[in-house]
Amino acid sequence: MKKVTVSGIYQTQFGELWDKSLEDLITESIHGCLIDSNIDSSQIQGVFVGNMLGGANENKEHLSSLISQILHSQVPVTRVEAACASGGLAIRLAVSAIRSGEIENALVIGAEKMTDLDSQTISAGLMGAASEEERTAGLTFPGLYALLAQKYFNNFHAQEKDLALVAVKNHFHGKFNPKAQFRFPISTQQVLNSAKIADPLKLLDCSPISDGAAAVFLASESWIKKHNKKNGVFIAGSAQAQDTLSLSQRSSLSSLSATKLAAQIAYRQAGISKKDINCVEIHDCFTIAEILALEDLGLYNKGEAYGHINEKETYIGGKQPTNTSGGLKACGHPVGATGVKQIIEATLQLRGQAGDRQVEDALVAVTQNIGGTGGTAIVHVLTK
Amino acid sequence: MKKVTVSGIYQTQFGELWDKSLEDLITESIHGCLIDSNIDSSQIQGVFVGNMLGGANENKEHLSSLISQILHSQVPVTRVEAACASGGLAIRLAVSAIRSGEIENALVIGAEKMTDLDSQTISAGLMGAASEEERTAGLTFPGLYALLAQKYFNNFHAQEKDLALVAVKNHFHGKFNPKAQFRFPISTQQVLNSAKIADPLKLLDCSPISDGAAAVFLASESWIKKHNKKNGVFIAGSAQAQDTLSLSQRSSLSSLSATKLAAQIAYRQAGISKKDINCVEIHDCFTIAEILALEDLGLYNKGEAYGHINEKETYIGGKQPTNTSGGLKACGHPVGATGVKQIIEATLQLRGQAGDRQVEDALVAVTQNIGGTGGTAIVHVLTK
Repeated sequence: MKKVTVSGIYQTQFGELWDKSLEDLITESIHGCLIDSNIDSSQIQGVFVGNMLGGANENKEHLSSLISQILHSQVPVTRVEAACASGGLAIRLAVSAIRSGEIENALVIGAEKMTDLDSQTISAGLMGAASEEERTAGLTFPGLYALLAQKYFNNFHAQEKDLALVAVKNHFHGKFNPKAQFRFPISTQQVLNSAKIADPLKLLDCSPISDGAAAVFLASESWIKKHNKKNGVFIAGSAQAQDTLSLSQRSSLSSLSATKLAAQIAYRQAGISKKDINCVEIHDCFTIAEILALEDLGLYNKGEAYGHINEKETYIGGKQPTNTSGGLKACGHPVGATGVKQIIEATLQLRGQAGDRQVEDALVAVTQNIGGTGGTAIVHVLTK
Repeated sequence: MKKVTVSGIYQTQFGELWDKSLEDLITESIHGCLIDSNIDSSQIQGVFVGNMLGGANENKEHLSSLISQILHSQVPVTRVEAACASGGLAIRLAVSAIRSGEIENALVIGAEKMTDLDSQTISAGLMGAASEEERTAGLTFPGLYALLAQKYFNNFHAQEKDLALVAVKNHFHGKFNPKAQFRFPISTQQVLNSAKIADPLKLLDCSPISDGAAAVFLASESWIKKHNKKNGVFIAGSAQAQDTLSLSQRSSLSSLSATKLAAQIAYRQAGISKKDINCVEIHDCFTIAEILALEDLGLYNKGEAYGHINEKETYIGGKQPTNTSGGLKACGHPVGATGVKQIIEATLQLRGQAGDRQVEDALVAVTQNIGGTGGTAIVHVLTK
């Protein structure tokens, strides 16, 4: 299997970017990534773009052609959508196309513009990622993840405070990320005192509504050598797995089986075991999701992840640094961009360019990006 | 390059299907295709789905997970969108994944539900495939294609009657297709007398708003042999090219350069020349689009395609049978389904199963599927 390298990265600011359109964000991320990659657009052989809500929210479909216009290029551009895993899916398809030799390099863009709509409209749009029965029952994503949290509490005796610690940790990390939406610490008490959204989840258990884009330039090792470009970080594992759209159709609510399966495949491809992993970027759309993912990725036994945050194990400097970018909670969650941003954070860590949030001697990083309540899961393994 | 076979096909009725939802259409096409392929869902190694407006129109994103639920499967499902070329793009990605050996087979689904919305809403949704400047100028797709028609008239002295003949021919073909939305002939005079939509295009120059789904099962030759399945039709060429989103950014309005480029690549892959092509399925969203495509695919010299319809050359039995399915005009145009339906029609022709619309001794068929005003073009070559 051909090795795939991450040769260029660029992330826009994440946040409430009132002066930027979806097209502005895409354009900025493309130009930023071309500069970081030290290439011009005529060298790009394929483009993949992840976006969820452009059509529903802003009537912007056919981003493929918009991007061709920006790049002045006729090479194939593929837009994919897998709800909040759209960015991760774009990465996976680019990796597959490069591995196969079909193309030698690809630009991957993830982008989302979410703040131009009132909160009811955007919440309704996001519910497009859930099942008909869940929507007609009046469930929202906080409600669906609240069900998962209730089940977890019931099975493993965790408490609201255990969830709050995830948000506190991710805000602590977000302070050190200049691209993060929220760069201030919060206390456990602040999380517990914040407005209840769907019992047991409170406002500060939830990731925000965000605007932002992220882009990476991937290439085969041979292309990198031939063109004398930056190397150093590889995507060594790339896998996707699915689950049912409805929670009611699942055999278990204590874990997300798509994450487990995708992780197994990705680790096998990369030839790593869970012990080799130095840092992880996890899809913490809600605090409970980070706890489930730490277990489903094999980093903690089932029912045990929550006990270790208190001991700072998942902080930078701990045994298992998790969401050093601030995660979805503090860095922000422009849905189509998140899966690409995770690859950028992993790359910065492996390059040793993560600044104040650098994990020492990071050699292996894992990213986990999910759609809906885990109906789609994408796991990547990055190595130095 | 591994050969890719079309081993199973299924098309739902196209039309105004008031009693069917998007999910119903997808489910029907999947089950129909599994039966035609004589496989069960556990044998499928990958799934690709093309859909444009599920999110914008019905708040249905994350079709990947919905399809996993229908299939009871955890294999990766990829939803793609390229406006009206979404179905063709899904086919291209499946072909690439099988060619590369990443997977040995794939189910490809194209589906769209369009009739549940009032005509203003659906027209606005479709304009998501055009550029911001075109939309804010008040252009619609009939308006954009009317500009292309005006330019063509001006350059090559064609007239409204020449466009009308395309619709007449496609309705004539549609009569013989039991899955077609319109199964009745129309006269040149009826087209010319129909309501003017955007000068020179009239109502009967335009493809309709439709519901429908189509699915195909693709597999490598080795998988087909190993499992003793139907063979006989190959996808020998598969290519995609892009163009600018805005017409104003194009260097020429007399042809769609993405179609030309995609055709060149697909013909080269398949080792065919234009002389080898026995039948074509073309993206006749408007009558002018069929004329442009016949030229851009190299089947007629630029400015000359329109003169030959009168001589019945593009009818079944003529020199260059075109849109034997009835095309988008008569078979209907559920946008995400169209690119997959074209593959089905080509397969039926090459299998010799096209019934009353069979092209004699068909050995090579070409399909052309475009998004927007040709911002994306997908061309496939099928051989026996």
